[in-house]
Amino acid sequence: MKHGGDLLSYEKYYDGDLIDYSSNINPLGPPLGLEDHLSTSYKNLSIYPDIKYRHLKKSISTYLKCQTKNIILGNGAVELIDNLIYLAQRVLVFLPSFLEYEKRAQIQGKEIVYINYSEDFTIDIKEIERKIKKGDLLILGNPNNPTGLRIDQVKLREIYQLTRKINAFLVLDEAFFEFCPKDYDSIEVFKDYEYESLAIIRAATKFFGLPGIRLGYGCTSKKIAKEIENIQLPWSINSYAEASSKVIFSDDKYIRESKAFMENERNFIQEELFKLKKIKIYPSETNFILIKLLKFDEDFVFNYFLERGILIRKCSSFRGLDNTYIRIAIKTRKENTKLLNIFMELENE
Amino acid sequence: MKHGGDLLSYEKYYDGDLIDYSSNINPLGPPLGLEDHLSTSYKNLSIYPDIKYRHLKKSISTYLKCQTKNIILGNGAVELIDNLIYLAQRVLVFLPSFLEYEKRAQIQGKEIVYINYSEDFTIDIKEIERKIKKGDLLILGNPNNPTGLRIDQVKLREIYQLTRKINAFLVLDEAFFEFCPKDYDSIEVFKDYEYESLAIIRAATKFFGLPGIRLGYGCTSKKIAKEIENIQLPWSINSYAEASSKVIFSDDKYIRESKAFMENERNFIQEELFKLKKIKIYPSETNFILIKLLKFDEDFVFNYFLERGILIRKCSSFRGLDNTYIRIAIKTRKENTKLLNIFMELENE
Repeated sequence: MKHGGDLLSYEKYYDGDLIDYSSNINPLGPPLGLEDHLSTSYKNLSIYPDIKYRHLKKSISTYLKCQTKNIILGNGAVELIDNLIYLAQRVLVFLPSFLEYEKRAQIQGKEIVYINYSEDFTIDIKEIERKIKKGDLLILGNPNNPTGLRIDQVKLREIYQLTRKINAFLVLDEAFFEFCPKDYDSIEVFKDYEYESLAIIRAATKFFGLPGIRLGYGCTSKKIAKEIENIQLPWSINSYAEASSKVIFSDDKYIRESKAFMENERNFIQEELFKLKKIKIYPSETNFILIKLLKFDEDFVFNYFLERGILIRKCSSFRGLDNTYIRIAIKTRKENTKLLNIFMELENE
Repeated sequence: MKHGGDLLSYEKYYDGDLIDYSSNINPLGPPLGLEDHLSTSYKNLSIYPDIKYRHLKKSISTYLKCQTKNIILGNGAVELIDNLIYLAQRVLVFLPSFLEYEKRAQIQGKEIVYINYSEDFTIDIKEIERKIKKGDLLILGNPNNPTGLRIDQVKLREIYQLTRKINAFLVLDEAFFEFCPKDYDSIEVFKDYEYESLAIIRAATKFFGLPGIRLGYGCTSKKIAKEIENIQLPWSINSYAEASSKVIFSDDKYIRESKAFMENERNFIQEELFKLKKIKIYPSETNFILIKLLKFDEDFVFNYFLERGILIRKCSSFRGLDNTYIRIAIKTRKENTKLLNIFMELENE
């Protein structure tokens, strides 16, 4: 199983500091006030985190604009996904998507049902209708990884109505939500349903630039929130993750600036990439871009970038993609310019 | 399910700072150099932890004196226990012991076989022999929580031979190991067997005073270590836990002093408690003491201490103990003296 961000394995191939375009983290780094706040939180390491995470849930509920009774927590989003899968009979996974959906289902011995995205990586609801059964858990990346596409709001509502009608459960993995253009917020969209048969998952990992702190959270019905709490490992969120919530979720300036920054860079980088003939890009709505290689395979391009100091993500490890796809992150202007220059060079190979 | 350390729930009942005798953490706090080191590790939060935890495993293998291929890691010891239970058919749990053994087995839908400790809370091997079958996982606290007793080395070897013969798996939960008198080290004892059908679990939680950092680790066969790695959630150890290993495991002075401190306080506090007539103490070999109440029930004593600013652990939530047991931690001389004074007061009730 391959993951992005495995810098340590590739450091030896480049004489200098590798730039990591394989993992999709906010290039601005975490909110500025966090470092000082965590320094003063050092003393918390000597006591157990609150087993009920009362303060943490309060901060998150304010940020997400939902009630604390609806909040679920995890050691990263992936633990939440794992715990939700536990509650299901079968798991419906769209291809291509985040590897862990399938892997966690497998480890738990759940039957997995695969559905392919359409050729443009959108969802054909008829495909869901054809395969979904009572007790199933359907998990959808929104936006999806590695395709970078967000589900249209009207279609999302239709999918939800379908899963509810059939007594299935819908999980929206929205780990990249804040990077997306302002269209809709599923937490608001499904508020009136009180998140019945639905879980929306987010995380501090990507947008708040904190993959190391391990903080996943989400919003679901009161009933499922209780069930998750009952099966969850105790103290699975560490004290620093617990403490970080007091700073990150209320830093409106950081949140606003990060969104504007990403929109700007996404437009810049996509505009340039669209001009190239040897690749095809899937227009992204988040902070990473899926690219189809028209003249090369992933290994060639991976090594091409590695030799030039950039680590990109090969995509054949995503079921449903062959060896002609790569995924790149979006970073700062200086780094993006370096990346674009290499793409330009590649164009002449 | 009840846990120690739930200060937040009881703060309102005492007008002042409650002293927490319900959770068993090194009263000296974490090693001194850790705070500065974690400050400089802040930047690591912006990248994923190494998915293979190469440096972390190296530090732990040096500390435990075993090979890196034998090292297993967890988000606290409890995640390791959970993952080991995953590999088993049935789970054999001694009573009374740490609540999570049973709870994790239950959640995973494993059959649980209960065995009672003898009246003095030692192990009768015949009881194991009678119940154990191929594919079983036998989990033993060593020292055991809440009884505070360590397994005699000769008996431990016998138990291991028995479980191996029958093709069962032995898990030793040694989260409190470093607090024990220097007798034997099971990692050394079972080195020649290359930890076949055995896992020894330890943690930074108790001895290094870091319940908030969530770092469990252990030693098992190369084969089982690989299996655990395959089923484990990715990045389940956070960056600060990863970073802490560079300081805590090599602080020989801290380790030496903590051991000496605990031995000294344990002797002091037990000597005083032995004099009392309304309680019976089970001689502890670690940093907490199980106490049988001869004249009161746990609620009375719990409230008695709470009113006087000390939180103790009621034990009826441990299957196998009724409402006439409490558990106390061992802390600093000043705190222990306060605790002893309340016990003396109780003696006159």
